[in-house]
Amino acid sequence: MQHAASSALLVAGWHRMSYSFPDHSLISNELEELIRKLHAIVGNANTTGRFIVFGAGSIQLLNAAVHALSPHNSSAPAKVVATIPFYPVYKSQTDFFQSVDFQFVGDTSLWKNTSDTTSNLIEFVTAPNNPDGKLNKAVLQGPNAKPIYDHAYYWPHFTPIPAPADEDLMIFTFSKLTGHAGSRFGWALIKDKDVYETMSNYMSLNVDGVSRDTQLRAFKLLKVVTRGRGREIFEFGYKTMKDRWEKLNRALLMSRRFSVQESSPQYCTFSGKVKRPSPAYAWLKCEKEEDKECYRVLKKAGIIGRNGTLFSANSSYVRLSLIKTQDDFDILLHRINKLVGEENGGKSSMRRMKSTVS
Amino acid sequence: MQHAASSALLVAGWHRMSYSFPDHSLISNELEELIRKLHAIVGNANTTGRFIVFGAGSIQLLNAAVHALSPHNSSAPAKVVATIPFYPVYKSQTDFFQSVDFQFVGDTSLWKNTSDTTSNLIEFVTAPNNPDGKLNKAVLQGPNAKPIYDHAYYWPHFTPIPAPADEDLMIFTFSKLTGHAGSRFGWALIKDKDVYETMSNYMSLNVDGVSRDTQLRAFKLLKVVTRGRGREIFEFGYKTMKDRWEKLNRALLMSRRFSVQESSPQYCTFSGKVKRPSPAYAWLKCEKEEDKECYRVLKKAGIIGRNGTLFSANSSYVRLSLIKTQDDFDILLHRINKLVGEENGGKSSMRRMKSTVS
Repeated sequence: MQHAASSALLVAGWHRMSYSFPDHSLISNELEELIRKLHAIVGNANTTGRFIVFGAGSIQLLNAAVHALSPHNSSAPAKVVATIPFYPVYKSQTDFFQSVDFQFVGDTSLWKNTSDTTSNLIEFVTAPNNPDGKLNKAVLQGPNAKPIYDHAYYWPHFTPIPAPADEDLMIFTFSKLTGHAGSRFGWALIKDKDVYETMSNYMSLNVDGVSRDTQLRAFKLLKVVTRGRGREIFEFGYKTMKDRWEKLNRALLMSRRFSVQESSPQYCTFSGKVKRPSPAYAWLKCEKEEDKECYRVLKKAGIIGRNGTLFSANSSYVRLSLIKTQDDFDILLHRINKLVGEENGGKSSMRRMKSTVS
Repeated sequence: MQHAASSALLVAGWHRMSYSFPDHSLISNELEELIRKLHAIVGNANTTGRFIVFGAGSIQLLNAAVHALSPHNSSAPAKVVATIPFYPVYKSQTDFFQSVDFQFVGDTSLWKNTSDTTSNLIEFVTAPNNPDGKLNKAVLQGPNAKPIYDHAYYWPHFTPIPAPADEDLMIFTFSKLTGHAGSRFGWALIKDKDVYETMSNYMSLNVDGVSRDTQLRAFKLLKVVTRGRGREIFEFGYKTMKDRWEKLNRALLMSRRFSVQESSPQYCTFSGKVKRPSPAYAWLKCEKEEDKECYRVLKKAGIIGRNGTLFSANSSYVRLSLIKTQDDFDILLHRINKLVGEENGGKSSMRRMKSTVS
């Protein structure tokens, strides 16, 4: 509830009633400029020579990108892949909207040495990855490889920023920047003019552009974010996420039953210093054979995560969200401590928990 | 600019940040109830036993409906049709999003006596029709016929309301109700539970639901519309549209070169009286062989319409919009009068124009 006054918005009854902005476009130029400024401040993406398309969150832009990177009416429809573990929507969305031009075919590794040289291979590359926070890079190479970089989490509160992302097609979203998921606002940075035009067509024929009310709100909120060159929101976010990650790791330190992904400190160009990991999710593994239904093990202990199978991994993995409210996180930590305590004998772990949660 | 105070909206910085409403849905129950109330007041649709899905204008719901009415992975994909003249998006959208499950195949009449009894036939039925204002009904009948009723213009300012629409799948939109096209808000009333669920899935996987900012604004605006049982906005709208239609018809009365669609007064249950036509568009025909490129004839006279070919009709037709600003309409009328005047000898027509425009 910080910045209540500056982030509030008064919308006049007659605001932006029309289909188009005065320049006949469906997107606000002022908002586009502010997005370029934000990336310049944060240093997380190179916007030079890139077109911008707005979408309803990143989700709509993912499918628009698949459309744009697929050949039209070819006898060889594009194959769409992602590297396990991956965000479930890549598969469910591509399956649901399966067109004559593209098809989801599973894990990237299966197509690394393919002899098929006629089909486009569209690879979802998520950096940092949801669920495991890795800064993935495209696996497939060559003229038919068409990566879509999903950078939803590439902000200084979730990862050190080693360098500006500089790929041909990059997707960002509001929901993981300010947390305003309900506004449904995202954008794509696109190098190729044809890809840009097809994605713009997609937006026109799908929804006639992003709601102008949403564009106005995004503008207002980004104005607040970029004030003071973004220091305030990103430092607050980093500190919160790093603290949670460290508390969770401390709780799991003595466990032989549960582990989480490893990650190391890295230099962050935005902060000008080495930063410790601060991921949005813990990709927790139940290490023991008898715990291979890890989701159930955790659920029994009052911890609700997302089953690894949703991410096309096996059931010994569970994704725990670290971006819920502080109360939710405190309860999660309490229950993790309790679980690990039972593993190691109740008394000592309870002491450790007390020193950790406060 | 009426109701400036009551239609303005203050959005708090933290309003609806989350993906979902407290009941875990993506749509506002209050807004849904208000929409049902609006239809009850206006008497233009029966919402009893209908589910409601929100969309970004009607455009997104059209394709969601096509998806939902198509068989999944069938060897006989659905055939999608519309009756000429029809709104161009039916074809361009269905072509762009062509899936393995459906395909746009053209004019309805070609499929009226089809021997194909295995494919679903999805028929766009537009009532009133864009461009010609007709209260169309479904042409195709039988168990495989699946009509999508586009009722964007089925409001008392554009047509008498003879009875509540009572079809299985009906689509409405804000842009032709209050004019807030930029907000991108529409809704579908759906009888069948499976169709409702597929359309809801479509919304989730396409955009994760309509922007909550847009839903809030729609709620606010509908509150203003429904005040006084809608009398004010619909009577103002009807009077404006009827006046324009009558002025245009008077201007064309003496013309043998140009004609517009015929329509008769009809009883309107909303107004409780017989109402004269008040369509959103004139579907103008250039009657003479030498004027068969009607769009060019009008353009030369400074009148910009939409070429009949865009609506899959022939080029002797042009759609003229009557829902622009009063200034735009006055200029249109002035130029129509001038054209007709030239046809009949300048002097008398100029006199007629003067008595008409003021």
